[in-house]
Amino acid sequence: MTKLWQKGYQVNEHVERFEAAQNSMLDSRLIRHDVWGSLAHVAMLQKIGILSTEEHATLKNALRSVLALEATHEFSVLPSDEDVHTSIENYLVTSAGATGKKIHMARSRNDQVLVDLRLYGKEQLHTVAESLTDLVSAFLEFAGTYALIPMPGYTHMQRAMLSSVGLWAASFAESLLDDEQLLSAAYRLNDQSPLGSAAGYGVPIPIDRQYSSDLLGFAHVQNNVIYVQNSRGKIEAAIVQALTQIMLDLSKFAQDVLLFTTAEYSFLQVPQELCTGSSIMPQKRNLGIMELVRARMQTMLALQQQILGIVSGLPSGYNMDYQETKRPFMEALDLILESLNICTLVVQNLSLDTANLVKACTFELFAADRAYELAIASKMPFRDAYRIVGAEVTAQLDRHIPLPVESQEQLVERLKARSHLGGAGSLALEEVSTHLGQVQMTWHERTAAFNNAIAHLVGINEA
Amino acid sequence: MTKLWQKGYQVNEHVERFEAAQNSMLDSRLIRHDVWGSLAHVAMLQKIGILSTEEHATLKNALRSVLALEATHEFSVLPSDEDVHTSIENYLVTSAGATGKKIHMARSRNDQVLVDLRLYGKEQLHTVAESLTDLVSAFLEFAGTYALIPMPGYTHMQRAMLSSVGLWAASFAESLLDDEQLLSAAYRLNDQSPLGSAAGYGVPIPIDRQYSSDLLGFAHVQNNVIYVQNSRGKIEAAIVQALTQIMLDLSKFAQDVLLFTTAEYSFLQVPQELCTGSSIMPQKRNLGIMELVRARMQTMLALQQQILGIVSGLPSGYNMDYQETKRPFMEALDLILESLNICTLVVQNLSLDTANLVKACTFELFAADRAYELAIASKMPFRDAYRIVGAEVTAQLDRHIPLPVESQEQLVERLKARSHLGGAGSLALEEVSTHLGQVQMTWHERTAAFNNAIAHLVGINEA
Amino acid sequence: MTKLWQKGYQVNEHVERFEAAQNSMLDSRLIRHDVWGSLAHVAMLQKIGILSTEEHATLKNALRSVLALEATHEFSVLPSDEDVHTSIENYLVTSAGATGKKIHMARSRNDQVLVDLRLYGKEQLHTVAESLTDLVSAFLEFAGTYALIPMPGYTHMQRAMLSSVGLWAASFAESLLDDEQLLSAAYRLNDQSPLGSAAGYGVPIPIDRQYSSDLLGFAHVQNNVIYVQNSRGKIEAAIVQALTQIMLDLSKFAQDVLLFTTAEYSFLQVPQELCTGSSIMPQKRNLGIMELVRARMQTMLALQQQILGIVSGLPSGYNMDYQETKRPFMEALDLILESLNICTLVVQNLSLDTANLVKACTFELFAADRAYELAIASKMPFRDAYRIVGAEVTAQLDRHIPLPVESQEQLVERLKARSHLGGAGSLALEEVSTHLGQVQMTWHERTAAFNNAIAHLVGINEA
Amino acid sequence: MTKLWQKGYQVNEHVERFEAAQNSMLDSRLIRHDVWGSLAHVAMLQKIGILSTEEHATLKNALRSVLALEATHEFSVLPSDEDVHTSIENYLVTSAGATGKKIHMARSRNDQVLVDLRLYGKEQLHTVAESLTDLVSAFLEFAGTYALIPMPGYTHMQRAMLSSVGLWAASFAESLLDDEQLLSAAYRLNDQSPLGSAAGYGVPIPIDRQYSSDLLGFAHVQNNVIYVQNSRGKIEAAIVQALTQIMLDLSKFAQDVLLFTTAEYSFLQVPQELCTGSSIMPQKRNLGIMELVRARMQTMLALQQQILGIVSGLPSGYNMDYQETKRPFMEALDLILESLNICTLVVQNLSLDTANLVKACTFELFAADRAYELAIASKMPFRDAYRIVGAEVTAQLDRHIPLPVESQEQLVERLKARSHLGGAGSLALEEVSTHLGQVQMTWHERTAAFNNAIAHLVGINEA
Repeated sequence: MTKLWQKGYQVNEHVERFEAAQNSMLDSRLIRHDVWGSLAHVAMLQKIGILSTEEHATLKNALRSVLALEATHEFSVLPSDEDVHTSIENYLVTSAGATGKKIHMARSRNDQVLVDLRLYGKEQLHTVAESLTDLVSAFLEFAGTYALIPMPGYTHMQRAMLSSVGLWAASFAESLLDDEQLLSAAYRLNDQSPLGSAAGYGVPIPIDRQYSSDLLGFAHVQNNVIYVQNSRGKIEAAIVQALTQIMLDLSKFAQDVLLFTTAEYSFLQVPQELCTGSSIMPQKRNLGIMELVRARMQTMLALQQQILGIVSGLPSGYNMDYQETKRPFMEALDLILESLNICTLVVQNLSLDTANLVKACTFELFAADRAYELAIASKMPFRDAYRIVGAEVTAQLDRHIPLPVESQEQLVERLKARSHLGGAGSLALEEVSTHLGQVQMTWHERTAAFNNAIAHLVGINEA
Repeated sequence: MTKLWQKGYQVNEHVERFEAAQNSMLDSRLIRHDVWGSLAHVAMLQKIGILSTEEHATLKNALRSVLALEATHEFSVLPSDEDVHTSIENYLVTSAGATGKKIHMARSRNDQVLVDLRLYGKEQLHTVAESLTDLVSAFLEFAGTYALIPMPGYTHMQRAMLSSVGLWAASFAESLLDDEQLLSAAYRLNDQSPLGSAAGYGVPIPIDRQYSSDLLGFAHVQNNVIYVQNSRGKIEAAIVQALTQIMLDLSKFAQDVLLFTTAEYSFLQVPQELCTGSSIMPQKRNLGIMELVRARMQTMLALQQQILGIVSGLPSGYNMDYQETKRPFMEALDLILESLNICTLVVQNLSLDTANLVKACTFELFAADRAYELAIASKMPFRDAYRIVGAEVTAQLDRHIPLPVESQEQLVERLKARSHLGGAGSLALEEVSTHLGQVQMTWHERTAAFNNAIAHLVGINEA
Repeated sequence: MTKLWQKGYQVNEHVERFEAAQNSMLDSRLIRHDVWGSLAHVAMLQKIGILSTEEHATLKNALRSVLALEATHEFSVLPSDEDVHTSIENYLVTSAGATGKKIHMARSRNDQVLVDLRLYGKEQLHTVAESLTDLVSAFLEFAGTYALIPMPGYTHMQRAMLSSVGLWAASFAESLLDDEQLLSAAYRLNDQSPLGSAAGYGVPIPIDRQYSSDLLGFAHVQNNVIYVQNSRGKIEAAIVQALTQIMLDLSKFAQDVLLFTTAEYSFLQVPQELCTGSSIMPQKRNLGIMELVRARMQTMLALQQQILGIVSGLPSGYNMDYQETKRPFMEALDLILESLNICTLVVQNLSLDTANLVKACTFELFAADRAYELAIASKMPFRDAYRIVGAEVTAQLDRHIPLPVESQEQLVERLKARSHLGGAGSLALEEVSTHLGQVQMTWHERTAAFNNAIAHLVGINEA
Repeated sequence: MTKLWQKGYQVNEHVERFEAAQNSMLDSRLIRHDVWGSLAHVAMLQKIGILSTEEHATLKNALRSVLALEATHEFSVLPSDEDVHTSIENYLVTSAGATGKKIHMARSRNDQVLVDLRLYGKEQLHTVAESLTDLVSAFLEFAGTYALIPMPGYTHMQRAMLSSVGLWAASFAESLLDDEQLLSAAYRLNDQSPLGSAAGYGVPIPIDRQYSSDLLGFAHVQNNVIYVQNSRGKIEAAIVQALTQIMLDLSKFAQDVLLFTTAEYSFLQVPQELCTGSSIMPQKRNLGIMELVRARMQTMLALQQQILGIVSGLPSGYNMDYQETKRPFMEALDLILESLNICTLVVQNLSLDTANLVKACTFELFAADRAYELAIASKMPFRDAYRIVGAEVTAQLDRHIPLPVESQEQLVERLKARSHLGGAGSLALEEVSTHLGQVQMTWHERTAAFNNAIAHLVGINEA
């Protein structure tokens, strides 16, 4: 296809492939968003008198037919087109003739790709937030069900103190809710309209950036046009940084599950439907999905590094280096969605081996408790009590004559005694649930506002 | 010195050095924060009846004398102490005897280090925010002074369109203000009290976590005690992620300044007091500080990577791996402060070579303008006008007979014509200044609230 | 399709997709290599008496028909197959019945994937080495053509000393030849046969690992079977580390070309066939390929980080995390090949603007030369001469009365005077060419030995 | 102190601090190396007639007195000096007057720092190689002692197949020996003399680069002077990449030890002298050193990332960004040395709980063995035997009626049956030891050659 800037010579085919092969594939995901941006742009051009009502109608119809084609996978972005913007402008010229050639007035592709990625980002983050809150919900339900099941608490991977399954599961819920705050901060940065920055230096035409921003449902206009261009990659990085925090929690959950399902721990079980086997060892039931979540934390980190590395130290203004940030941005969003959903599946299918959990709550977990008791009972300084108990416990461990494990009931009493804020006896699951509900509400409102703006822009009611 | 856990054997000296050499050095920065945490802890222990009023007073006085020693650099953390917590407990035992041995009741060092780092983080972020807003202020002043000085705008490092010095400088101000939003989000995550999580599994004692949190000026208690421990490194990473965004802007500014001060561009000048020379080439005036800012963006990225890499995939509960996150966290905060301040110094000392700037605004910058004019004047589709102008300009460039450069006045008129939101003729510096003022107010309030809480906790009025 | 380990239950479809969607796509590249590994394995099984001659012949024929199908793109690896090993075993069972079910005796898929990746790596590195040496050759030719064309040499991005185009171009040739040493070291680590490690713990059957290693053309057997498995990802990382070094050179070349083709420098030109344009600025000729090379250095770094991050801290033995290293490994190899070839294209098409180069060799470049002359002529200590010349030059620069530029002939004389090893007057291009020839020879021998072994294994002569 | 380039103005103190505070501290490690470089330089200047014999003698004596001062920690590099080169030149001017001012003829500080870092790198790598081979030796001894102690082999962190302690320990020895190849490749790149590149563009004086290279004990001269400068950071990165590979092995060892010393596994024990305790849980014996090794793998990765990130995309010629690579380079070398030594300490102190190891070799480890036996005995295809055994084992596992564990003797017989190359019954420890011996010899020769050259250069015999 003709490139927008083509002026009588053919670009070298190796150059074309090097620049556009990957990009055109990625741009296939941005067809709808590019159309939306163009719909807002032409409405604005009509408002300021650059396009007549008829021209606007012609372009709007042609753009809507791109949406129709896209819906049935009939619109494609070829490597020879370079990018989705060119594909669509070429389509408009073909279908709307001279009017089609008017669409690029007062804008630039640098502008368009920013609009497309912001809209894509918003849409994806709506879904990410839904998956995130679903997972929080699953953790809270699990924590509620097993709130007072005893479990050893570890430090340095060594048995340390009494803990509970509820405390463990609820810790992930709270962590993910904190991540949501970072996600929302990145969402807000992304929720600014770049449209109208053109090539990064504006245009000598009195375009109405506020109008197109409102049509696209953005919270506000991103003002300085150089900053608009310079924020390419940067805002994507802010989003991926938030995703990294989520993935960090998932990697910890994965590592815990992998440990707790070993033969040696045997605390948790996962149904065989979630496991895969070995081609050589008939007995194996491997929890590959948790291994991959653990590994994909590293992939997420690499994507974060890639985007930030690319944009570091670039001079102001558009540089084609930015194009290389598109793929890691899209992959990071795919990755988090798949990982959140797979973790929800695991949480919903985890079962406990309570007997093993109780058995693992061996006497040394209570050494600190005994030091506390001794300190209080004998009005002895804690550090002295600590040394006395320490000597006892060490002796017992060394002589391999450990005290018997307490009964589950005794352990539950101990758990209940951890009654301070956030202790095993005071998980505050209801408060966390209430907070979750508020978070869900915020995201539902964001999603609805976006969908309404787009529906209005496309003119679904008129159709 | 005696380790808190020592029970009759000597730890291997290589082990001691491997674990504690670096840590004790870093902990020297945390003496005040550790004392503050202990003051809140003992006040709480007295409130719930574990300590008598007298014991509380004794401990409080001893802790205050640590602050006094620290102020005159007479309190030190030795490698043989392992950490600041041990140094201070040892001091208390020495100075307050049996009462000193009571302080560690119902808490853990895992707990303390979290408190220390949160308080350290808050203090540092108050300073970072001040340096950040100072730099924004310097950019805005510079942008105001040179608002309508013409400058070529670049894309792909090639001259693209007319820009202005004001537009360029203001772009950094807006970018940094967006970063502030990310910084505030991370600040809020950090503003949660971890105190009372003990070793990560709480204590069988009805401690009052809300009380100690309030005393320390935290916004609220971080609830789930496992999550508290699991957030070690994680919240530090959230802060460093925000710092990375700031550094990204600084690296772009540095790269621009380095380009614009070359002999080839000669747009900007920096006084020789900010430059360093060569040992062999007598003429050299090198802007090493900008090269180092560019390089330190990579250092910041590496610190972000280091913290996140360390905490990835760790099982729940404290792991000593966390200790290794302390240094990159502190270094990242040092790095951003120095870099912000050095950039402010540069902005305040930059001068222009206006003649060169005007001369560089060569005719090809206006090709798009001419295409717009042609499209509007001849009611021609933009794409057709683009091709006509493109052929003209290319021919002129190829025949090396460029059109003459316009006068500065003509260029200023062109700049004014970019009158849409965020264009060179409409920088909205006042609105940005107003926003800056609000941001400064928010941080002043945060700083004041923190300082008041600490003053009250230490009992400065009583002294 | 049936999984090899399937035993009466269906794996959850989300799990299947999470684990196998990407993997099966990547495995489509490994069909040939997997067949080669199987050919060696069955030959070995026959040698030690596990397979009869007939069974061997049956399996060999079936495996050869996979190669035939692959050659015409008729053999595919479906997500439901999990991986290429399963696809091929399923094919063998279908086409060879009970004999097909015998192939997996005494091996594991963990084993196979290592064999496949080692063979894939060897093949790819042969091509990388060819592209690398082609680029060195292009640089040497360019350096020879323009050996004595003057050019300013920069430090701190400021004009520093006289340099030459030849010196600049030859620097890349030497750097790439040093990279080749790192590449060869990684190649040698990769050139070890993993076959026979089975699941990482060997088999209780006297397999002949040396025999299969020889058949596959490996330099030697990788001995310890746990180490074999633990080197998954590790050896890939060693290769990618070497590729990173190559990419580092290319990124420097790209940055230089981007600077030297700006309007401000105007030292170099690239034909428009290698450039792309702007959709809005008709005059633009952007060297996007060099911007992408610069950006892809960061992609390469991220791939290196990803692989090493994934394998860090994993316990011994196969973990499914390894699967996540396959993609970055393959992408890194693709990336280096495309980048090397595009750089060769650029070098072969670069032209100079000699007049501009000469004009840029302004008088301050010779300040050090004059200090040397003064020191020698007046028997003055260098540091004193430096200060005298420094004062002169600074005064001239400050008063904007620079000395006139020397003629090209004068500059060439100066270049020739840099006659010490590696100076502009003594590039030693012939010695470098000789070294290049030896490197090419080494790689040709490696490639030939590999191709011969594979041809013999497949039995091309017999066909 | 006076800077070498100072010409009548004071540099801003913030600038001085930003550029030199860290650098001067790091440079304190390079005093000896800088003197060595200067000794070679002045010897060369005398050889080519720039310095008289007397001047040479004066400078040589002055330089030797720097070495004497350094040996007693009386020579320091102050921030106001910028760097070690300035400190030493200032010292020479003070102690040798006008002759001292002659030393900087025909060289540059860019040159010197390269020389210093190459020599520092060589010295450090000699030590690294010694520590590395010591650790290999410890692993081999451990493997020999426990060659046939059974141990479960894991895949996916699940019990998979029979393994042995010897196989496990020897895997690290072989992995580290492969790393040594990468280290040697990086060593060879580093073993090139940069001296004479001056500021990166050579000098118009017929210096004898080969002579100074020989005096310093370099293997050869690094030719192209631009490449010399461009290799700053690059060769450091090559070294750190090799160190990363070593650290990767150590992190795996650390993770294994941490798992195998949990209460749940209880395979290995470490004496309490290598452990540290808890301030609150008297029973804890934490293996913090192994946690730190695991964490420091991430630190190493970050250092690798930092160096490569800094040098990526820099234009040719010296840029001050390079200065920022000095610290991560030095830290990486420190890190690897400490980590290697601490791991050797652990290996030398590890003891086994053989009873637990045997008990953990449960029947499911032998499922593949039984499938093999069935296949061979019944001449049944492996895949059919696999399914039959799989059904049996699964049923036993599900009904929780596992077969009894075999005796240690039976297990040893099974281990011996893994008699193929690299199997548990054929560890080839002697061959590995022989290889280790050759490696040690190579490094001893390198170290000796270096020490001899330096001794000769300094003129120890004459003293």
